[in-house]
Amino acid sequence: MSTAADDLALGFAERTPETTRSRLLTWQDPVPSAAAGAEMAGIDYMRAFADGELPPPPIAVTMRARPLEIAEGRVVFEGEPGEEHYNPIGVVHGGWVSTLLDSALGCAVHTTLPAGVMYTTLTLETKFVRPISRETGVVRCEADVLHRGRRQATAEARAVDSGGKLLAHGTATCIIFGG
Amino acid sequence: MSTAADDLALGFAERTPETTRSRLLTWQDPVPSAAAGAEMAGIDYMRAFADGELPPPPIAVTMRARPLEIAEGRVVFEGEPGEEHYNPIGVVHGGWVSTLLDSALGCAVHTTLPAGVMYTTLTLETKFVRPISRETGVVRCEADVLHRGRRQATAEARAVDSGGKLLAHGTATCIIFGG
Amino acid sequence: MSTAADDLALGFAERTPETTRSRLLTWQDPVPSAAAGAEMAGIDYMRAFADGELPPPPIAVTMRARPLEIAEGRVVFEGEPGEEHYNPIGVVHGGWVSTLLDSALGCAVHTTLPAGVMYTTLTLETKFVRPISRETGVVRCEADVLHRGRRQATAEARAVDSGGKLLAHGTATCIIFGG
Amino acid sequence: MSTAADDLALGFAERTPETTRSRLLTWQDPVPSAAAGAEMAGIDYMRAFADGELPPPPIAVTMRARPLEIAEGRVVFEGEPGEEHYNPIGVVHGGWVSTLLDSALGCAVHTTLPAGVMYTTLTLETKFVRPISRETGVVRCEADVLHRGRRQATAEARAVDSGGKLLAHGTATCIIFGG
Repeated sequence: MSTAADDLALGFAERTPETTRSRLLTWQDPVPSAAAGAEMAGIDYMRAFADGELPPPPIAVTMRARPLEIAEGRVVFEGEPGEEHYNPIGVVHGGWVSTLLDSALGCAVHTTLPAGVMYTTLTLETKFVRPISRETGVVRCEADVLHRGRRQATAEARAVDSGGKLLAHGTATCIIFGG
Repeated sequence: MSTAADDLALGFAERTPETTRSRLLTWQDPVPSAAAGAEMAGIDYMRAFADGELPPPPIAVTMRARPLEIAEGRVVFEGEPGEEHYNPIGVVHGGWVSTLLDSALGCAVHTTLPAGVMYTTLTLETKFVRPISRETGVVRCEADVLHRGRRQATAEARAVDSGGKLLAHGTATCIIFGG
Repeated sequence: MSTAADDLALGFAERTPETTRSRLLTWQDPVPSAAAGAEMAGIDYMRAFADGELPPPPIAVTMRARPLEIAEGRVVFEGEPGEEHYNPIGVVHGGWVSTLLDSALGCAVHTTLPAGVMYTTLTLETKFVRPISRETGVVRCEADVLHRGRRQATAEARAVDSGGKLLAHGTATCIIFGG
Repeated sequence: MSTAADDLALGFAERTPETTRSRLLTWQDPVPSAAAGAEMAGIDYMRAFADGELPPPPIAVTMRARPLEIAEGRVVFEGEPGEEHYNPIGVVHGGWVSTLLDSALGCAVHTTLPAGVMYTTLTLETKFVRPISRETGVVRCEADVLHRGRRQATAEARAVDSGGKLLAHGTATCIIFGG
């Protein structure tokens, strides 16, 4: 898993040990889980992650996120932003909370699908309302399905801090197929 | 930089060495760069990253992304999806390309700002048009500012594979202040 | 108020009296109301419309819409789609419900603004979940402010039929200025 | 075509003849055209409108809009905002340009569909960049399909004034079915 992209860091301005940080990401091959999931009802597959019966998908490790609650049409995730998610202007990159919202939105739709029916997200709209930093701490993200039709589903999600303050919110449209 | 969230992986189902993967993220403290950037014209700050005068922001390391071209109102990024960006359904998480689009969109707007003027992204809309996997290889992302007003700016971006096939596209609205 | 655009109908294929429909739009000059509104708190201005103290804005006549309830950060509108809102594929144009959502979203934000503070909508995202026709009847649209900051506000809205079935939903981001 | 909603104007504050405006909307029953269109290739159906072989759909009359150019994957519309499209804050309602963008976006996708294949718009995102008033005059709106897949299509559109100044832009996602 070491590629040319890992070497992006090389060739940049001098570093000192004092300013160099690192984190070891460790995850499991996601292919076996995905293959198992394709034959499960969505809610059972999501619960297998939440209950620890399946290893967390790699993106969850990278983003420090995990599912907390799984119900039909509703999921709750939490995530903890790290310095490795910082952007060039000194706060957590908008992609971090977009990823958290997208995870919760997609999984909320997934919980409504019987075995053999699949979805893919067509659009994700994120609204950033407050900056997020490491000091924000754990972010809670709740997603609810608003519409579950035969061909499409829509959902909305909110990300809040531990005091309930809104940090970001979003919506997604998913297409449903294979049923 | 090791926190409780790093331990999410613990407590999950048994792993074998054969299915366990890892990647060491290494980055530089982003605070000094951000402080320097606050006093620079946006285009100069972006070029300092592209030219390697400043270390890549942490999110760029995590997402395996980097700026290739910087012009006023237009930037090009590239990124290489890794297995650590995979979602539970066996492809690269939509958050990865959302992050790439958001980076390019925000930086395109940033290149239009004189020193002392700041921006923040209010909304990001991502449209996913084709699945992305490790086999996709390097993804090129071009962003252009469509409108640069006094209080707001909008931009659009496209992410394509090495053959020019469209993978995702998006738009952003940024607010401008502090001028 | 008759312009060249009114003549668009001319020059098209033959019509018969049986297939020709018409509706007379009648409205009041919107400029005096807008001038009065600029000096009022948003909630008072919105209530003046809901209470009939001010004539409905022209778009409300054109779209057959009106405010029902006005509270701080929350408004309810209703609208009745007509044949004059039909698109080429035989149902009500998506622009009709987009207009209804945009009205409710903007007015919800407006109710949070003191006199002298203004807003403008930067982005509107509409999700169409069920087709709308004349048979749909009166559509109810509720909008709630999700975030009201110093520089921006976000809101969400849902449009439902008389049985409570979701027809469309949307979000908006507004910029706030002049305070 | 006169309904209770037409009477919304009644019961509001006193009017004088000097401030009362009116416009007579006249359109053709849209059902026969829609039925004909269901059996035509999309591009032929769109051209029949542009060439005047079919009467304009009612929404085009209401919004003072019409198609100018029709090609595969690309259409150009124009529209002329009227006072009947004004909102309570004294400019043209955002719903007007949203409708124009939605029309162009949907029609651009429609031009890519063979006879018997249908589409419906799932999401519309509008970005408002400059206010529109009657003084703006004719607005030109160009839409291009960005992705045309088997199940979904995406498109982008820009609305500009006669001097080419950007007024608004938008994107849409459509679902394709029935093929």
